Amino acid sequence: MLSEFSLIDRYFARRASAPSPHHRDEAARPRGIGDDCALIAPPAGHQLAISTDMLVEGRHFFPDVDPRALGHKALAVNLSDLAAMGAQPHAFTLALALPRAEEAWLEAFSDGMFALAEHFDCALIGGDTTSGPLNMCITVFGNVPHHAALRRDAAQPGDDLYVSGLLGDAHAGLGHALSEWTTPDDATAMQWKRALEWPEPRVELGIALRGVAHAALDISDGLTGDLMHILKRSNLRAVVDADAVPCSDALRNLPDAARRQCALAGGDDYELCFTAPVSAREALAAIAKRVGVGVTRIGTIESGAPAIEWRDTHGAPLSLTLQSFDHFHAD
Amino acid sequence: MLSEFSLIDRYFARRASAPSPHHRDEAARPRGIGDDCALIAPPAGHQLAISTDMLVEGRHFFPDVDPRALGHKALAVNLSDLAAMGAQPHAFTLALALPRAEEAWLEAFSDGMFALAEHFDCALIGGDTTSGPLNMCITVFGNVPHHAALRRDAAQPGDDLYVSGLLGDAHAGLGHALSEWTTPDDATAMQWKRALEWPEPRVELGIALRGVAHAALDISDGLTGDLMHILKRSNLRAVVDADAVPCSDALRNLPDAARRQCALAGGDDYELCFTAPVSAREALAAIAKRVGVGVTRIGTIESGAPAIEWRDTHGAPLSLTLQSFDHFHAD
Repeated sequence: MLSEFSLIDRYFARRASAPSPHHRDEAARPRGIGDDCALIAPPAGHQLAISTDMLVEGRHFFPDVDPRALGHKALAVNLSDLAAMGAQPHAFTLALALPRAEEAWLEAFSDGMFALAEHFDCALIGGDTTSGPLNMCITVFGNVPHHAALRRDAAQPGDDLYVSGLLGDAHAGLGHALSEWTTPDDATAMQWKRALEWPEPRVELGIALRGVAHAALDISDGLTGDLMHILKRSNLRAVVDADAVPCSDALRNLPDAARRQCALAGGDDYELCFTAPVSAREALAAIAKRVGVGVTRIGTIESGAPAIEWRDTHGAPLSLTLQSFDHFHAD
Repeated sequence: MLSEFSLIDRYFARRASAPSPHHRDEAARPRGIGDDCALIAPPAGHQLAISTDMLVEGRHFFPDVDPRALGHKALAVNLSDLAAMGAQPHAFTLALALPRAEEAWLEAFSDGMFALAEHFDCALIGGDTTSGPLNMCITVFGNVPHHAALRRDAAQPGDDLYVSGLLGDAHAGLGHALSEWTTPDDATAMQWKRALEWPEPRVELGIALRGVAHAALDISDGLTGDLMHILKRSNLRAVVDADAVPCSDALRNLPDAARRQCALAGGDDYELCFTAPVSAREALAAIAKRVGVGVTRIGTIESGAPAIEWRDTHGAPLSLTLQSFDHFHAD
């Protein structure tokens, strides 16, 4: 059994304080663990974008989840919020409540977390460790030039509506784990599980969208609910081709209702949803190619009271019954 | 039962977005809840001091604690970290896991938290709400001029050693709640309970110590353990007069061993411990008077391997057996 301080030292502080080869300017490197506070400053002309997410066992992940995947996902969902604002990851803090200090678990958890952190040159600068029911709270800091942050309230009538990547596999993985549906093959089950456990934050895409997209957010609670945030904050409506929403071949194996529930209202996708003027179509195609992430046009933004009008491929109205995710109602 | 979003809106977002009369410069006011990230920037020539603390039911507070006190303390322990660095509170995020959305509890909790936040003009700028075992994680942001932050590694041989306020009442309150000792009267019990539940972060003192103190931290885990952080980071030793450590008259009612355990090793005090050159004695007396917080000289810093040498009032060595606080060993 490790004491609190040797635990912090062994699994977190050592790697937190390792100098990164990318931080050539010593003064710009955040001061890390060891004082009461970490000290950071955004570069001149930049703001700090800040987001915090709390993950709870049994609510956001299964008790038997691979701790390496959990370490990855705990940070990934926060980086996804930076991506949604077009911010460049810079640093993060980790607060961790653990029922017990298990070395194998901590090693895998920290490995998964630091692999992603190092990929984005995002330094662990502080944290807190306590005993308690498993809970992890990460707060992440990114740099974004003044007035360049992508926001939810900036959609314009006539904008195209886009999503990145494929939607629904994560929710399909959740439903599969809960035996709500079965898969025809193990490869599909693996693909869904991977989507659920190893989301890829669209950081490069978010940064590339600065000055191109109007409004943006990340899809964490399902397209329907999250798109409504853009519509309410921008006071506009959307017309969306439900069947244009990109999803994997694996998802097409599910019955229509289940597939649409996954793709249109399933949570945990961590893709970006954004609006952009029609004039940006060519630029967006080039950006998608450059960052290696698919970007699909799924509808248009129009004047009118905040609402989503679903259409099918032929433009006919679709009446969909979708349940958005709510931590105090969903199961 | 409230949904997640109406809960955030009712108890947090509304007060978070209320403009403060102190933030006259609109551009300097942090952008709050509603986007994927909050956006803040320290003033020119300043850094952001950042600290995060997680509070868990049954570990950091009793299940039947007054939620108003809990809201206060959850923020206070974070502001205390800013105080320890000499940083001016600016903003905070709150992540909250709740077993259920109880309106009376949320109202009292948010009232206690916002009363303290408003006192220090510290804005709630973002957060996360989920269901789960009661857990709250606050990350706090303060402004401090470049190179002015008080650190743990800056003690100098010959420095005086100080603490603010009175130590030990909070731990006495904990011991009383756990029936480890009794009090002669209800007034004493109330005083201890208040010290445990309503700590006062020494923000004004911390800011006043910029450029005066050498090393500083806040006493959250007990004087002994926390002072050792300064000594290890500064690679110095301390000689401390155990009986000079200031404590309340109420604490003097306890037997010597219990009193010393409370004052020298009890956690949850949130007073500042700092070192300063002998030449600063007059300035420190003036600061203490101005900010209205007692400051007591309890020892000296010397060259030598990190260790605390305890002395009694007559300068004779004292051998003390004290247990410092460790989240994975203490009960």
